[in-house]
Amino acid sequence: MLIVGERINTSRKHIRKAVEKRDVKYIQNEAKTQVEAGATFVDVNSGTSVAKETEDLKWLVQVVQEAVSVPLCIDSPSATALAAALPFHKNGQPMINSITAEKQRIAEILPLVKQYNALVVGLAMGDGGMPSGFEDRKKAVLTILEACEKAGVSRDRIYFDPVICPVSTKQSEGMAAVETVRFIMSELKGAHTTCGLSNISFGLPERTNLNRTFLTLMMAAGLDGVIMDPTEPGMMSTLLATNVLLGKDEFCMDYIRAGRAGKLQAH
Amino acid sequence: MLIVGERINTSRKHIRKAVEKRDVKYIQNEAKTQVEAGATFVDVNSGTSVAKETEDLKWLVQVVQEAVSVPLCIDSPSATALAAALPFHKNGQPMINSITAEKQRIAEILPLVKQYNALVVGLAMGDGGMPSGFEDRKKAVLTILEACEKAGVSRDRIYFDPVICPVSTKQSEGMAAVETVRFIMSELKGAHTTCGLSNISFGLPERTNLNRTFLTLMMAAGLDGVIMDPTEPGMMSTLLATNVLLGKDEFCMDYIRAGRAGKLQAH
Repeated sequence: MLIVGERINTSRKHIRKAVEKRDVKYIQNEAKTQVEAGATFVDVNSGTSVAKETEDLKWLVQVVQEAVSVPLCIDSPSATALAAALPFHKNGQPMINSITAEKQRIAEILPLVKQYNALVVGLAMGDGGMPSGFEDRKKAVLTILEACEKAGVSRDRIYFDPVICPVSTKQSEGMAAVETVRFIMSELKGAHTTCGLSNISFGLPERTNLNRTFLTLMMAAGLDGVIMDPTEPGMMSTLLATNVLLGKDEFCMDYIRAGRAGKLQAH
Repeated sequence: MLIVGERINTSRKHIRKAVEKRDVKYIQNEAKTQVEAGATFVDVNSGTSVAKETEDLKWLVQVVQEAVSVPLCIDSPSATALAAALPFHKNGQPMINSITAEKQRIAEILPLVKQYNALVVGLAMGDGGMPSGFEDRKKAVLTILEACEKAGVSRDRIYFDPVICPVSTKQSEGMAAVETVRFIMSELKGAHTTCGLSNISFGLPERTNLNRTFLTLMMAAGLDGVIMDPTEPGMMSTLLATNVLLGKDEFCMDYIRAGRAGKLQAH
């Protein structure tokens, strides 16, 4: 399971301040904490300031890599920012977050995926904006798949994200996302799936309950990557428990090891 | 969702002592607490002492019914104990827990299900003892279904329990139980499913993580009943969150109401 730690994002107030002040220690600590909690990739996103995004992203890539040895998930819709930051990536194979089925985004960003032999997040949305229902998502997924394979980017480098909308707004969207993952994992063998979980619970109380439960539903459908905050209480416990129950943790070793290390939540 | 509160069972030390001392207050408090936490049935089980089971069960049925208005799930493999306790049940339609596919158990207990117009738990195990894998369970389920329908007990009165074995012993048993639920809910329309959850996590650390996660997987497969401790931290939060995500809680009203009442776990 690929686990992308999502905390280093300037949409979070403390991160924005740390980036503005070039607070190396604060950012490096955020990276380390996430890797210790189980992240196998660290996401970096400096998208809140368009004017400074490129410089900030370059800085983040360098600073984070000094602190942790896992690869980064470089998170921007801007080809300019990605093109500036990617040359600084040294920790193995980078992940580009993200392309969509939008023509312009494919045209600008897919060449970078190819040039840097990167993994890529493919958001299941097209020129029409946010998707609605399964068919919308499926259409976007197939468009992205076709463009990637045509460009020589094999499907095992794509992590499709079904795009999570709040269930408080439209309740069927949660299961539409689950259905999209099931479709990709069973019909597009070799391709991967991921998602940013936390949107699902927007507007509802005690959001972590919903985020944890949704993670289990998505993993049961085959999800093999996730973008989340691995330090959020209980989140990694749920991920490990789900792997046990789905038969993906042989002899329950990862679960038992986490228990011995005191890393499982009591409830 | 039918929620059977499992706490009043003499295999629990405090309950055994309270039953031995005929401590009415203690038992009634256990019943009330479970109903307040969300139980729609209260299970009573006095099976630890064979010599006194019948007298204890009769006493429990009467004492619990004075405290709560929900029906009881009368829990014994003994037709003698069930036959003695059932005449005292007054709170609507009782549930008998349980029959199996064993010939003798069907012959002895099915007539009681009929006589008292009861709901019945059908454990997916036959004369061969504990089931292993999906096919074993399916065979037992079909045997029980046939016997019930032949006796005039319609399938909507049956809650099939796939029999949960610890994943620490044989990891594939969790998914075999999930598959059994999916089979019953999709192929035997009208029949119900339930299960005692907590066995799944036997022998592993921080068991509630696994119990909660397993509940979500089972509900995603269609589970519409459960035997559990509704006071166990986070259990009802997971149940409510799962209903939201599966689209079974219209406008998220139950979830939001539980949040307002402070009944959702923070994590």
